[in-house]
Amino acid sequence: MVTLINCFEVPAGREEEFFAGYQKVNAYMRAKKGYVSNKMHRSLAPDAKFRFVNVVQWESREACEAAHDAGFRELIAYPALSSVRSTPALYEVVHEGRPEIRE
Amino acid sequence: MVTLINCFEVPAGREEEFFAGYQKVNAYMRAKKGYVSNKMHRSLAPDAKFRFVNVVQWESREACEAAHDAGFRELIAYPALSSVRSTPALYEVVHEGRPEIRE
Repeated sequence: MVTLINCFEVPAGREEEFFAGYQKVNAYMRAKKGYVSNKMHRSLAPDAKFRFVNVVQWESREACEAAHDAGFRELIAYPALSSVRSTPALYEVVHEGRPEIRE
Repeated sequence: MVTLINCFEVPAGREEEFFAGYQKVNAYMRAKKGYVSNKMHRSLAPDAKFRFVNVVQWESREACEAAHDAGFRELIAYPALSSVRSTPALYEVVHEGRPEIRE
Protein backbone atom coordinates (compact mmCIF):
# COMPACT_ATOMS: atom_id res chain seq x y z
CA MET A 1 0.00 0.00 0.00
CA VAL A 2 1.24 3.50 -0.83
CA THR A 3 -0.24 6.91 -0.05
CA LEU A 4 -0.39 9.76 -2.52
CA ILE A 5 -0.51 13.12 -0.76
CA ASN A 6 -1.30 16.11 -2.94
CA CYS A 7 -1.21 19.67 -1.53
CA PHE A 8 -3.15 22.27 -3.54
CA GLU A 9 -2.65 26.04 -3.54
CA VAL A 10 -6.06 27.38 -4.57
CA PRO A 11 -6.57 31.15 -4.98
CA ALA A 12 -9.27 32.69 -2.76
CA GLY A 13 -12.66 32.63 -4.46
CA ARG A 14 -11.75 29.65 -6.66
CA GLU A 15 -12.53 26.93 -4.11
CA GLU A 16 -15.92 25.82 -5.49
CA GLU A 17 -14.65 25.65 -9.05
CA PHE A 18 -11.62 23.66 -7.91
CA PHE A 19 -13.72 21.27 -5.85
CA ALA A 20 -16.09 20.61 -8.76
CA GLY A 21 -13.05 19.77 -10.90
CA TYR A 22 -11.70 17.51 -8.19
CA GLN A 23 -14.99 15.60 -8.07
CA LYS A 24 -14.74 14.79 -11.79
CA VAL A 25 -11.16 13.58 -11.46
CA ASN A 26 -11.99 11.62 -8.31
CA ALA A 27 -14.90 9.80 -9.99
CA TYR A 28 -12.51 8.81 -12.79
CA MET A 29 -9.76 7.62 -10.44
CA ARG A 30 -12.10 5.68 -8.13
CA ALA A 31 -12.84 3.29 -11.00
CA LYS A 32 -9.14 2.57 -11.60
CA LYS A 33 -7.46 -0.72 -10.71
CA GLY A 34 -5.61 -0.44 -7.43
CA TYR A 35 -7.47 2.60 -6.07
CA VAL A 36 -8.27 1.91 -2.39
CA SER A 37 -9.70 5.08 -0.81
CA ASN A 38 -9.14 8.80 -0.40
CA LYS A 39 -9.95 11.74 1.83
CA MET A 40 -10.08 15.29 0.52
CA HIS A 41 -9.32 17.92 3.18
CA ARG A 42 -10.14 21.65 3.14
CA SER A 43 -8.36 24.02 5.51
CA LEU A 44 -10.37 25.65 8.30
CA ALA A 45 -8.52 28.92 7.64
CA PRO A 46 -9.31 30.41 4.21
CA ASP A 47 -5.74 31.72 3.88
CA ALA A 48 -3.84 28.49 4.59
CA LYS A 49 -1.02 27.91 2.09
CA PHE A 50 -2.56 24.59 1.08
CA ARG A 51 -6.32 25.18 0.86
CA PHE A 52 -6.93 21.53 -0.04
CA VAL A 53 -4.94 18.36 0.67
CA ASN A 54 -5.90 15.03 -0.90
CA VAL A 55 -4.70 11.83 0.81
CA VAL A 56 -5.16 8.78 -1.43
CA GLN A 57 -4.39 5.12 -0.77
CA TRP A 58 -3.30 2.97 -3.71
CA GLU A 59 -2.51 -0.73 -3.69
CA SER A 60 0.94 -0.08 -5.14
CA ARG A 61 3.13 2.54 -6.74
CA GLU A 62 2.65 0.81 -10.09
CA ALA A 63 -1.17 0.98 -9.85
CA CYS A 64 -1.00 4.65 -8.91
CA GLU A 65 1.30 5.51 -11.80
CA ALA A 66 -0.77 3.52 -14.31
CA ALA A 67 -3.96 5.28 -13.21
CA HIS A 68 -2.52 8.71 -14.02
CA ASP A 69 -3.09 8.11 -17.72
CA ALA A 70 -4.20 10.11 -20.77
CA GLY A 71 -7.78 10.29 -19.48
CA PHE A 72 -6.55 11.71 -16.19
CA ARG A 73 -4.35 14.29 -17.95
CA GLU A 74 -7.31 15.36 -20.08
CA LEU A 75 -9.44 15.95 -16.97
CA ILE A 76 -6.82 18.04 -15.18
CA ALA A 77 -6.25 20.19 -18.27
CA TYR A 78 -9.47 22.13 -17.53
CA PRO A 79 -8.73 25.64 -16.26
CA ALA A 80 -10.30 25.00 -12.82
CA LEU A 81 -7.49 22.53 -12.13
CA SER A 82 -4.67 23.53 -14.47
CA SER A 83 -4.46 27.00 -12.86
CA VAL A 84 -3.91 25.48 -9.41
CA ARG A 85 -0.42 24.69 -8.15
CA SER A 86 -0.19 21.17 -6.75
CA THR A 87 2.60 19.35 -4.93
CA PRO A 88 2.01 15.58 -5.17
CA ALA A 89 4.26 12.79 -3.89
CA LEU A 90 4.03 9.15 -2.91
CA TYR A 91 4.52 8.13 0.72
CA GLU A 92 4.71 5.15 3.02
CA VAL A 93 3.35 5.27 6.56
CA VAL A 94 6.38 5.03 8.88
CA HIS A 95 4.57 5.47 12.21
CA GLU A 96 0.99 5.21 13.48
CA GLY A 97 0.10 6.81 16.80
CA ARG A 98 -2.71 6.02 19.22
CA PRO A 99 -3.53 7.81 22.49
CA GLU A 100 -1.15 7.14 25.35
CA ILE A 101 -3.15 6.60 28.51
CA ARG A 102 -1.40 7.98 31.56
CA GLU A 103 -1.71 5.64 34.53
CA MET B 1 -13.05 16.10 14.65
CA VAL B 2 -10.34 18.12 12.92
CA THR B 3 -7.21 17.03 11.07
CA LEU B 4 -3.85 18.69 11.46
CA ILE B 5 -1.68 18.18 8.37
CA ASN B 6 1.96 19.18 8.71
CA CYS B 7 4.31 19.06 5.71
CA PHE B 8 8.03 18.94 6.56
CA GLU B 9 10.97 19.96 4.35
CA VAL B 10 13.86 17.90 5.71
CA PRO B 11 17.34 18.28 4.20
CA ALA B 12 18.87 15.11 2.75
CA GLY B 13 20.85 13.20 5.35
CA ARG B 14 18.85 14.67 8.26
CA GLU B 15 15.94 12.20 8.10
CA GLU B 16 16.95 9.97 11.02
CA GLU B 17 17.66 12.89 13.30
CA PHE B 18 14.34 14.48 12.35
CA PHE B 19 12.41 11.26 12.89
CA ALA B 20 13.94 10.76 16.35
CA GLY B 21 12.83 14.29 17.24
CA TYR B 22 9.36 13.59 15.88
CA GLN B 23 9.09 10.49 18.09
CA LYS B 24 9.74 12.56 21.21
CA VAL B 25 7.15 15.16 20.25
CA ASN B 26 4.67 12.46 19.26
CA ALA B 27 4.98 10.66 22.62
CA TYR B 28 4.25 14.00 24.33
CA MET B 29 1.24 14.82 22.14
CA ARG B 30 -0.31 11.33 22.34
CA ALA B 31 -0.87 11.88 26.06
CA LYS B 32 -2.75 15.15 25.49
CA LYS B 33 -6.50 15.54 25.94
CA GLY B 34 -8.28 15.39 22.61
CA TYR B 35 -5.52 13.58 20.67
CA VAL B 36 -7.18 10.84 18.58
CA SER B 37 -4.57 9.30 16.24
CA ASN B 38 -1.88 10.14 13.71
CA LYS B 39 0.03 8.74 10.78
CA MET B 40 3.53 9.91 9.91
CA HIS B 41 4.37 9.53 6.21
CA ARG B 42 7.81 9.46 4.56
CA SER B 43 8.15 10.05 0.83
CA LEU B 44 9.24 7.15 -1.38
CA ALA B 45 11.44 9.56 -3.35
CA PRO B 46 14.31 10.98 -1.27
CA ASP B 47 14.07 14.31 -3.09
CA ALA B 48 10.36 15.00 -2.61
CA LYS B 49 9.69 18.58 -1.51
CA PHE B 50 7.95 17.32 1.61
CA ARG B 51 10.06 14.42 2.91
CA PHE B 52 7.62 13.81 5.79
CA VAL B 53 3.92 14.57 6.19
CA ASN B 54 2.15 14.08 9.53
CA VAL B 55 -1.65 13.66 9.50
CA VAL B 56 -3.12 13.99 12.99
CA GLN B 57 -6.72 13.70 14.16
CA TRP B 58 -7.82 15.84 17.11
CA GLU B 59 -11.21 15.88 18.77
CA SER B 60 -11.51 19.63 18.20
CA ARG B 61 -9.62 22.72 17.14
CA GLU B 62 -9.58 23.84 20.78
CA ALA B 63 -7.99 20.58 21.97
CA CYS B 64 -5.36 20.79 19.23
CA GLU B 65 -4.48 24.38 20.07
CA ALA B 66 -4.33 23.70 23.82
CA ALA B 67 -2.00 20.73 23.26
CA HIS B 68 0.58 22.91 21.48
CA ASP B 69 1.73 24.34 24.82
CA ALA B 70 5.01 25.36 26.45
CA GLY B 71 6.13 21.72 26.76
CA PHE B 72 5.54 21.23 23.04
CA ARG B 73 7.46 24.39 22.15
CA GLU B 74 10.36 23.26 24.31
CA LEU B 75 10.53 19.92 22.46
CA ILE B 76 10.51 21.47 19.00
CA ALA B 77 13.25 23.93 19.96
CA TYR B 78 15.88 21.17 19.59
CA PRO B 79 18.01 21.66 16.45
CA ALA B 80 16.79 18.41 14.81
CA LEU B 81 13.34 19.99 14.55
CA SER B 82 13.92 23.73 14.69
CA SER B 83 16.07 23.61 11.54
CA VAL B 84 13.26 21.97 9.55
CA ARG B 85 10.70 24.07 7.69
CA SER B 86 7.15 22.94 8.44
CA THR B 87 3.82 23.99 6.97
CA PRO B 88 1.02 23.02 9.39
CA ALA B 89 -2.70 23.77 9.06
CA LEU B 90 -6.01 22.46 10.38
CA TYR B 91 -8.42 20.75 8.00
CA GLU B 92 -11.86 19.21 7.79
CA VAL B 93 -12.57 16.20 5.58
CA VAL B 94 -14.89 17.43 2.82
CA HIS B 95 -15.08 14.22 0.78
CA GLU B 96 -14.32 10.53 1.33
CA GLY B 97 -13.90 8.26 -1.70
CA ARG B 98 -14.33 4.52 -2.00
CA PRO B 99 -13.76 2.36 -5.11
CA GLU B 100 -16.38 2.70 -7.81
CA ILE B 101 -17.23 -0.74 -9.13
CA ARG B 102 -17.94 -0.74 -12.83
CA GLU B 103 -20.91 -2.94 -13.69
